[in-house]
Amino acid sequence: MVTKQEIKLIKSLNQKKHRQQLGLFTVEGIKGIREFLNSDFELETLYTTKPIFEAPHDQTVIISENELSKLSTLKNPNTALAVFKIPKPLKVDTDCLIVALDDVRDPGNLGTIIRLCDWYGVKDLVCSINTVDCYNSKVVQATMGSLTRVNVAYVDLLDFLSHQKTTVFGTYMVGENVYQTDLTKEGIVVLGNEANGISAEITSMIDRKITIPQFGNSKDTESLNVANATAIVLSEFRRRTIEM
Amino acid sequence: MVTKQEIKLIKSLNQKKHRQQLGLFTVEGIKGIREFLNSDFELETLYTTKPIFEAPHDQTVIISENELSKLSTLKNPNTALAVFKIPKPLKVDTDCLIVALDDVRDPGNLGTIIRLCDWYGVKDLVCSINTVDCYNSKVVQATMGSLTRVNVAYVDLLDFLSHQKTTVFGTYMVGENVYQTDLTKEGIVVLGNEANGISAEITSMIDRKITIPQFGNSKDTESLNVANATAIVLSEFRRRTIEM
Repeated sequence: MVTKQEIKLIKSLNQKKHRQQLGLFTVEGIKGIREFLNSDFELETLYTTKPIFEAPHDQTVIISENELSKLSTLKNPNTALAVFKIPKPLKVDTDCLIVALDDVRDPGNLGTIIRLCDWYGVKDLVCSINTVDCYNSKVVQATMGSLTRVNVAYVDLLDFLSHQKTTVFGTYMVGENVYQTDLTKEGIVVLGNEANGISAEITSMIDRKITIPQFGNSKDTESLNVANATAIVLSEFRRRTIEM
Repeated sequence: MVTKQEIKLIKSLNQKKHRQQLGLFTVEGIKGIREFLNSDFELETLYTTKPIFEAPHDQTVIISENELSKLSTLKNPNTALAVFKIPKPLKVDTDCLIVALDDVRDPGNLGTIIRLCDWYGVKDLVCSINTVDCYNSKVVQATMGSLTRVNVAYVDLLDFLSHQKTTVFGTYMVGENVYQTDLTKEGIVVLGNEANGISAEITSMIDRKITIPQFGNSKDTESLNVANATAIVLSEFRRRTIEM
């Protein structure tokens, strides 16, 4: 049984300002919740229509399907919704390859990028303050559990980059051909906003501009989506700099 | 001014069976409509709140914002909606690199894959009958105009592949490491359904199984999304087999 007050609190977590005030976010669906339970994330409360054995009893609230649909942001709610604590981001390890995002706004893109970081063994993702919040429920959903394995830190990106000694790569429409660029094992790869790319301010911090060449011959072709660009660039860094 | 009958017809085009019966589909937004007007696609009727100079007068219907919102599938309709004729697919050129999809169901994924084919100069995309329809409005939207430059053919994929002499590559969780595989300039690259991958039936037609290796070390990491896998595989084929 879930109280009106709990419903109100959980619904308020759909907004970033409430997530930040309360230090809480939601995860939906058994599979996703299990991944968070088996990680370093701390459970606040699990609301579920069926008990999940990994969750402590005293933090589990059994609810009806009808109650779940009141809590859920999904069209078809999936068994359970859990509230977890937002952890403090870990210190970013600048001896490794890092991805940095300059104002990526689409939750699906951020979720996919977190999943790609997980696949390609990138432990730290640094985001500008105006990048969509990684605890937005659409992002959490799109990461397919990868948010438990990638450290996401929101920083003043200009200030962060200005303090780094490692090479800062940036992806642009015009730059060195990524297939012919001498890539390094460590470094920071910056990807920009969906509509505007990397801002002029952040561009001032870029050491090397790289580009993914177009092979089709139409000048009308739109630039690659930022998540696909991330996929291709991470693929290039890893295949060349890591022993397989 | 748009009639009730026109509204009914245009709304019916949200369903594949009606699109197929009538041989028509819709495109929304000025930018997308312009790309179709400047391509080989044939306009049926343009409904717009502002005249577009590229469209013939006798096929243009000026409508109000309110009328547009009745026709549109978008939350925020964008100036115009056009009805175009569905063209007959061109003959697939098997002397080139081709992408084939085995039951990809998500409109966003298909749209992104069409956009990737355009970027990487893949002219033909072959889809199994159960792959989502490329004239679905969400797919059209997600292709960002690339649908005007990529030939999409729906075929009995098993039958199609059984008649090809070129190498058929398939992407799997286990296979030859794509970074170490000897790739060819022509050939067919098959990608599978979001949940199930390539079916057993289609697997019987695959000459070479390839895989994108995981660099992160968690066994819980989900396999790459099919659109990202397409991005990485096309990147590998093109960088190695085309003069840059």
